[in-house]
Amino acid sequence: MNGSHLRKDPVTQRWVVISPSRADVPQVAEPSRPQPLGPEVCPFCPGHEGETGAELYVDLAPGGTPNRRGWYLRVVPDRRPIFHIEGGLERSAEGMYDAMNALGAHEILVETPEHAAQWGTLDTAQIERVLRACQVRMLDLRNDQRFRHVIWVKTHGMPASVFQHSHSHIVASPIVPWAIEEELKGFSSHLRWKERCVLCDVLKQEAKDGRRVILREGGIMVLTPYAPRFAFETWIVPVEHSHDFTGARPALLRDLARALQGLVRRVQGLLDDPPFSLVLHASPVGEFTREEYHWHLEFVPRPPQVIGLEWGTGIYINPVPPELAAERLRAVGS
Amino acid sequence: MNGSHLRKDPVTQRWVVISPSRADVPQVAEPSRPQPLGPEVCPFCPGHEGETGAELYVDLAPGGTPNRRGWYLRVVPDRRPIFHIEGGLERSAEGMYDAMNALGAHEILVETPEHAAQWGTLDTAQIERVLRACQVRMLDLRNDQRFRHVIWVKTHGMPASVFQHSHSHIVASPIVPWAIEEELKGFSSHLRWKERCVLCDVLKQEAKDGRRVILREGGIMVLTPYAPRFAFETWIVPVEHSHDFTGARPALLRDLARALQGLVRRVQGLLDDPPFSLVLHASPVGEFTREEYHWHLEFVPRPPQVIGLEWGTGIYINPVPPELAAERLRAVGS
Repeated sequence: MNGSHLRKDPVTQRWVVISPSRADVPQVAEPSRPQPLGPEVCPFCPGHEGETGAELYVDLAPGGTPNRRGWYLRVVPDRRPIFHIEGGLERSAEGMYDAMNALGAHEILVETPEHAAQWGTLDTAQIERVLRACQVRMLDLRNDQRFRHVIWVKTHGMPASVFQHSHSHIVASPIVPWAIEEELKGFSSHLRWKERCVLCDVLKQEAKDGRRVILREGGIMVLTPYAPRFAFETWIVPVEHSHDFTGARPALLRDLARALQGLVRRVQGLLDDPPFSLVLHASPVGEFTREEYHWHLEFVPRPPQVIGLEWGTGIYINPVPPELAAERLRAVGS
Repeated sequence: MNGSHLRKDPVTQRWVVISPSRADVPQVAEPSRPQPLGPEVCPFCPGHEGETGAELYVDLAPGGTPNRRGWYLRVVPDRRPIFHIEGGLERSAEGMYDAMNALGAHEILVETPEHAAQWGTLDTAQIERVLRACQVRMLDLRNDQRFRHVIWVKTHGMPASVFQHSHSHIVASPIVPWAIEEELKGFSSHLRWKERCVLCDVLKQEAKDGRRVILREGGIMVLTPYAPRFAFETWIVPVEHSHDFTGARPALLRDLARALQGLVRRVQGLLDDPPFSLVLHASPVGEFTREEYHWHLEFVPRPPQVIGLEWGTGIYINPVPPELAAERLRAVGS
């Protein structure tokens, strides 16, 4: 197969994306720190709507017109997608190996018209709009029978990105991501043995214990997990069991927006505005839906370079105990 | 538990090391680029033998004395170990959670007396000595009933390291690393369905196909895997099935030394001496030994920072197809 496609490792059964279109030169360069795009050339700024693909979703401000100025947020196709929306799912074999075309969707959520706005200072209502837009796009994408999973990923301040304008990615894929599969095994096994949800059990124990809880906003709890791989890794979890983020009602989205903003402010206060990654973990979709899954978000500030031991063995070494991380984040205030 | 210890994530069942002793300040700093230690203050240089712990193994040069000058290589305890050798294995529960003390061994293999020597330019016989030293230490460590796995990890040129003097790590752990467990599932499943080793099958297909083979040295094949997570990821595999690296005979170690040096030279020629990681994957030990495992080494130049999508989902995006990587590495010559 030419172009971007998926291949399965024959030993671990893990799918990877081989995406040659994303590298012009086939070499391993020193990580670059490209010049960020200023507002005058930023394709995510108002007045530059024609520089992106047509809107897949738009939250219009009063008097606004689609694909023009006058919006609170917009969702557009990614110009350099990991997955491509065109065509049917094609599976192929190469001797003992399995491949498939990189069918899927890759969308950009432009989270605000303001070039320099950040989650810490945005109006909380704007973060609610972002979450609502995610729900709308996920509801649309999961109607597509070719997709097994939809994920939402936000990164902030990564040195390798040219886009400083606040945005995030919505990715629909023809495979269930490895991390979700691993979690599903855990949910299923706990359900089988205890007839309960493991994450519901975690929330109950954490609420009682208190040492790893950072904050609580209505139906949302923000905590450091018991066994985090990374320093200051944080989970944001709805207290009531649900496998389906798109089913979260407006009141819960408001709690979630407040909780996320509260977390981001605390992290910025404590750690000097570090880059961060935020990923929505939810059940697979369509016929692969699993109601035992408990949706949540995972947050990691300044994702570290993982060197030999981590990628080679899967053993992560975390220098900051989660009790200490939570204590510091509680103390700093939001 | 205080100090370094292991905790198991209740959902994924993955063990992580919480190692507070490795961070003096509990924060997430910008990755530092510390000043490398010059030969006058390098604890791995001849004349500084007293600055390390006593030798666990030494390959003496003619006329040399243990723990003094006059050695080809030496193995000493790590001064800031991930795992600690003292005491018994203690397991504990914290409500629904599981922890154990970070019992294990963490040793440093000082690979040459020459401060500035590197694998690309070392005498090949010296790399053979390194591999032999690994075997000897692994044979010793696996006699310890408390350990389930022994791994060897070499990194070169990582910007975060103060030690430029060529060295590697031997780590014995009371758990089977996650990556090895995942591979074992693949080996078992292929064995059950096909009654063959999956990696033996891979080698046969790759030898016939040729596009992903970089080089062959006697009993060792060096190739880019079909579904690599990272650009220029490479596997170094013995052609004859064996689960046990310590069982490799001197002739095979010589082939392996040549193959590794050939690979490093090609990578240095093509990619401007990048940092790299090299990890030995072998069967668990003692009562956990699994003969269906096929030992091999995995090599990654310039391990990239993994951001949201990779750690959040387990989906890796690789910009360099392995056929192209192998073609380039064949062309450059060693």
